[in-house]
Amino acid sequence: MKAKTMSFTEFPSKLLENAVSEFASLPGIGRKTAFRLVMNLLRRDSEEVKRFGESIIKLQEEIRYCKICHNISDTGVCNICCDEKRDHTLVCVVENIQDVIAIENTRQYKGLYHVLGGIISPIDGVGPADLTIESLEKKIKAGGIREIILALSTTMEGDTTNYYLYKKLSGYESLITTLARGVAIGDELEYTDEITLGRAINNRNPYQQ
Amino acid sequence: MKAKTMSFTEFPSKLLENAVSEFASLPGIGRKTAFRLVMNLLRRDSEEVKRFGESIIKLQEEIRYCKICHNISDTGVCNICCDEKRDHTLVCVVENIQDVIAIENTRQYKGLYHVLGGIISPIDGVGPADLTIESLEKKIKAGGIREIILALSTTMEGDTTNYYLYKKLSGYESLITTLARGVAIGDELEYTDEITLGRAINNRNPYQQ
Repeated sequence: MKAKTMSFTEFPSKLLENAVSEFASLPGIGRKTAFRLVMNLLRRDSEEVKRFGESIIKLQEEIRYCKICHNISDTGVCNICCDEKRDHTLVCVVENIQDVIAIENTRQYKGLYHVLGGIISPIDGVGPADLTIESLEKKIKAGGIREIILALSTTMEGDTTNYYLYKKLSGYESLITTLARGVAIGDELEYTDEITLGRAINNRNPYQQ
Repeated sequence: MKAKTMSFTEFPSKLLENAVSEFASLPGIGRKTAFRLVMNLLRRDSEEVKRFGESIIKLQEEIRYCKICHNISDTGVCNICCDEKRDHTLVCVVENIQDVIAIENTRQYKGLYHVLGGIISPIDGVGPADLTIESLEKKIKAGGIREIILALSTTMEGDTTNYYLYKKLSGYESLITTLARGVAIGDELEYTDEITLGRAINNRNPYQQ
């Protein structure tokens, strides 16, 4: 069967047209998919659709960011920063909220976070001043932080940001560490790139049962 | 590179959780994609996000269906039914609004439409009473319609509905026709199924230059 080719030149309704355009503005969603999504909404109860629309509006209007770690939060200070069972002397620096969720899902980390809100990337016009680096420095200056873990992506931008943060923060008492680099679990050595493999050999660990 | 496995067990915010759940309720959108879409919305201006949410709410609250053909419309009678340049003695019966748009995009049809709002499908619990068949019969009874084109899908449900409509409407003066069945343009004969090919041979047309 061939794909139907459909160019949505004319819609029978301006309201429909608007909704389709909004959905099509989302990443990875074309006009055809957007139309399919809107038709799905049209078939639903009006209560349900209202809840959908309101969840989007509320998201922007009511969402707060934690004053301490800049993570997303419904309150002034997020659940993680409020949690007294967590190690408040350990701060993990991440790029964004997705990374907080990813690390939380490992259930291996019990310290706090600091969300940078991006990564230094001159090509995208993002410099150190656009990130929450000043607030991080202030936090470290205030003392009581044993270790700062730089948990940024292993890209060129991540390395640049790591280097910048290291230069900026190495004058204080806190220890600065980065995530272990090595062969990912499930990877075959044959297909691992040489830089990763080289690092994995240099940073080898005693065998653990 | 391997795909990150992320199970979104805990969200740092209830508002975020709600918005992700709503997006994930759309067809073909999982929780991971939903989260990505919501993060995209979070990065936007609040004005833009408000417009997005409102376009959805307005869609349900303000959308009208044409009193004559049941097509979607911003007004009581749709643009197509209002258009005096169109042939009002020709009615094309389609399953849904998507089909109206598909036929309109061919720019080959200048008559009116009648949107059934579905197709007879006992498996999905859709019977003749759930469709706008009564309103179609009333329209034909009132007279002035030269031809009714049944433009339904060539599925078992489409054939059932065609048969039902034919039985119901054949007592009136209007001629009842269906779309031509044949080999689709761009198809290779070798791969065309035997029913389609058989119909195409039986319904062969004089060669046109």
